[in-house]
Amino acid sequence: MSEAVVIATRAREASNPLATTSSQQRDHALLTMGYALVHRQDEILAANQADLAAARERNTAAPLLDRLELTPARIKAMSESLKSLSLLPDPIGEVVSGSRLANGIWIEQVRVPLGVVAMIYEARPNVTADAAGLAVKTGNAIILRGGSMAHASNMAMTAVLASAAEGAGLPKNVIQSVESTSHEVAEELMGLHGMIDVLIPRGSARLIRSVVENAKVPVIETGVGNCHIYVHAAADAEMARRIVINAKCQRPGVCNSAESLLVDSSIHERVLPPILRALEDEGVTVMGDSKTRALGAIMRIKPATDEDWGTEYLDLTMSCKVVSGLDEAIGHINTYGTKHSEAIITEDYSAARRFLDEVDAAAVYVNASTRFTDGGQFGLGAEIGISTQKLHARGPMGLTALTTTKFKAMGSGQIRE
Amino acid sequence: MSEAVVIATRAREASNPLATTSSQQRDHALLTMGYALVHRQDEILAANQADLAAARERNTAAPLLDRLELTPARIKAMSESLKSLSLLPDPIGEVVSGSRLANGIWIEQVRVPLGVVAMIYEARPNVTADAAGLAVKTGNAIILRGGSMAHASNMAMTAVLASAAEGAGLPKNVIQSVESTSHEVAEELMGLHGMIDVLIPRGSARLIRSVVENAKVPVIETGVGNCHIYVHAAADAEMARRIVINAKCQRPGVCNSAESLLVDSSIHERVLPPILRALEDEGVTVMGDSKTRALGAIMRIKPATDEDWGTEYLDLTMSCKVVSGLDEAIGHINTYGTKHSEAIITEDYSAARRFLDEVDAAAVYVNASTRFTDGGQFGLGAEIGISTQKLHARGPMGLTALTTTKFKAMGSGQIRE
Repeated sequence: MSEAVVIATRAREASNPLATTSSQQRDHALLTMGYALVHRQDEILAANQADLAAARERNTAAPLLDRLELTPARIKAMSESLKSLSLLPDPIGEVVSGSRLANGIWIEQVRVPLGVVAMIYEARPNVTADAAGLAVKTGNAIILRGGSMAHASNMAMTAVLASAAEGAGLPKNVIQSVESTSHEVAEELMGLHGMIDVLIPRGSARLIRSVVENAKVPVIETGVGNCHIYVHAAADAEMARRIVINAKCQRPGVCNSAESLLVDSSIHERVLPPILRALEDEGVTVMGDSKTRALGAIMRIKPATDEDWGTEYLDLTMSCKVVSGLDEAIGHINTYGTKHSEAIITEDYSAARRFLDEVDAAAVYVNASTRFTDGGQFGLGAEIGISTQKLHARGPMGLTALTTTKFKAMGSGQIRE
Repeated sequence: MSEAVVIATRAREASNPLATTSSQQRDHALLTMGYALVHRQDEILAANQADLAAARERNTAAPLLDRLELTPARIKAMSESLKSLSLLPDPIGEVVSGSRLANGIWIEQVRVPLGVVAMIYEARPNVTADAAGLAVKTGNAIILRGGSMAHASNMAMTAVLASAAEGAGLPKNVIQSVESTSHEVAEELMGLHGMIDVLIPRGSARLIRSVVENAKVPVIETGVGNCHIYVHAAADAEMARRIVINAKCQRPGVCNSAESLLVDSSIHERVLPPILRALEDEGVTVMGDSKTRALGAIMRIKPATDEDWGTEYLDLTMSCKVVSGLDEAIGHINTYGTKHSEAIITEDYSAARRFLDEVDAAAVYVNASTRFTDGGQFGLGAEIGISTQKLHARGPMGLTALTTTKFKAMGSGQIRE
């Protein structure tokens, strides 16, 4: 048997006893896991040093090295995160609906774990602790497949977390990481239909695309965000400037940051120049259409191509287009957007209503920054990721995204006539 | 462009204006569609006669011909179904949750259509009308790909339903059937990621398997049910007999009928013979393990192989195994079951509790027939199918399974600090 099958079989076996553990047992395990991360941080830091040394040898860029690096403070933060998770209400066991059928059967729909969750990710090593914690909280066995750059760190953390979970009384093999870094193992995981209940990719658009293309197991797509700010004819110009700058510049590398600016042609000559100047002050390169460039006298505007309208820069770059009105703005967003987060700036009631209704995205905003699309900001307690698909979960995903339901029917001998 | 891409592009274009139609408009369209089916039944019946003639020429078996045949009474029933659908509450627009965030943003999670739904099916032509109706009710554009045997009937019904929907004021191309019956078109549909929001296969296990294996678009798996009845040591023997007969024989060709009987070894010598005799009276062939066969004197018991434990017969055949107790029963079901519907017959409180908790299935029963797993029986109003996957929807699916949600956030200039 291949490693993927061995690991998935073990996870499957662990998932049944895990599903019937009590909230108390799982919350106790989370606290133990958090404690173990700090208590055994020397092992984790040593493995991380090995990853860092190898990365430096390959001349990895400084921001990537920073993302890779673990410190006592970062380990402490992961530990605190596990503790916070233990304090959240348990979604498992919630009775979602129920009734007494006409024939006397009592029926209830109850929230239960999915079973086996797999995550393929490239990001920081803290995803390992986060994902393991979310799985334990929701009673799911988890299979982790992190990026090769953080492999030693991930394996060390998995060893610590898995032994802590088992020591706290959970079944063996609830938390496992794939040992091999080969692409074949990842592809095999994607094909294990019936053994893995959901696969969540987290990382680059390329990684997510590859999982969607190849997976035979159910997938939750996350992340890619080509988000727009549309400055409507009835916008408050100063509010528009503040929101554009916040949405573009506050943290340009994340999925809910804005990538494209649309401005109504009836006001663009007045409203756009101060926004462009503010973007320039922040060091943003603007890719503009002809009307934007015709405003002149602003240095950083480069000509936008059709490709720009569909690009998620994740950087200090923004495309800018002057549109004829609400219809063109909504049409443009529904064509080029990735259905993540979209905003209109307006004081017009009917325009706001139409934008909220007609733009097809996980989150639609009036007069607020797209940067709010986030589980913490939306009050979900914990965030698994931001789903950009429509099935199962859409937008920021809280704990319930890692659950399903089961119907329990209690009868007294009923048969169907 | 291929036919699949042309049709999906049209559906995508129709889905945006469709999503913002009112309940009134969609319910009016459903009534018009129902009226049109009856009013233009001659066209539909003529097309159906052509399908029937072709099927007879290929020496199709009588039950299949019966499934294929449309009559004025069957058309009337489809029309009535569309009318009933128009009377159900509209799931679209429901505010699922909402709050005022600390920063003053009003946020609400609202139920919206998925967008474009595709269905690949083999079953009776009435699925065409049912699926079109469910799509219109939930504001989704639908792409239908029926079986080749009913092709003329499906195309005729689609023409009638589509023109009625358009005549009633819905956008063009809300209801479309694929003209080509080639496998390539079906495979192409499965690959249209980003254009089709969900694909629902309905039909044989082979069809469903092929869709799951090949689809790159999100899929909802339906249907396959290897359902068990477990007669526990503390069962009421007469209740057990009645439920086994009902679950196996009332309609053996459907997914919620029972395929396998498990009987506790402490009572099997007393309880099993009357059940086996009753099954024999109903013409059921029993595939038994050695202990079942050792009861002797019962004619129809053939030796069961390991393959039998995993087989959905969909016929008057049932496998039968004597188990040592609750642990073996739950283990067997979680190994061989298809996570559809599973039942225990017992008067023991703790055994009932453990079975409900530990059996991993869409519906778990105590002292009732598995035949109740059905949208109508569960009070869902309309049924799209029975999901045997865990993501998005599990068990009988009502109208909400064809919806997703969107977050609407209404601010007053908020930016993220």
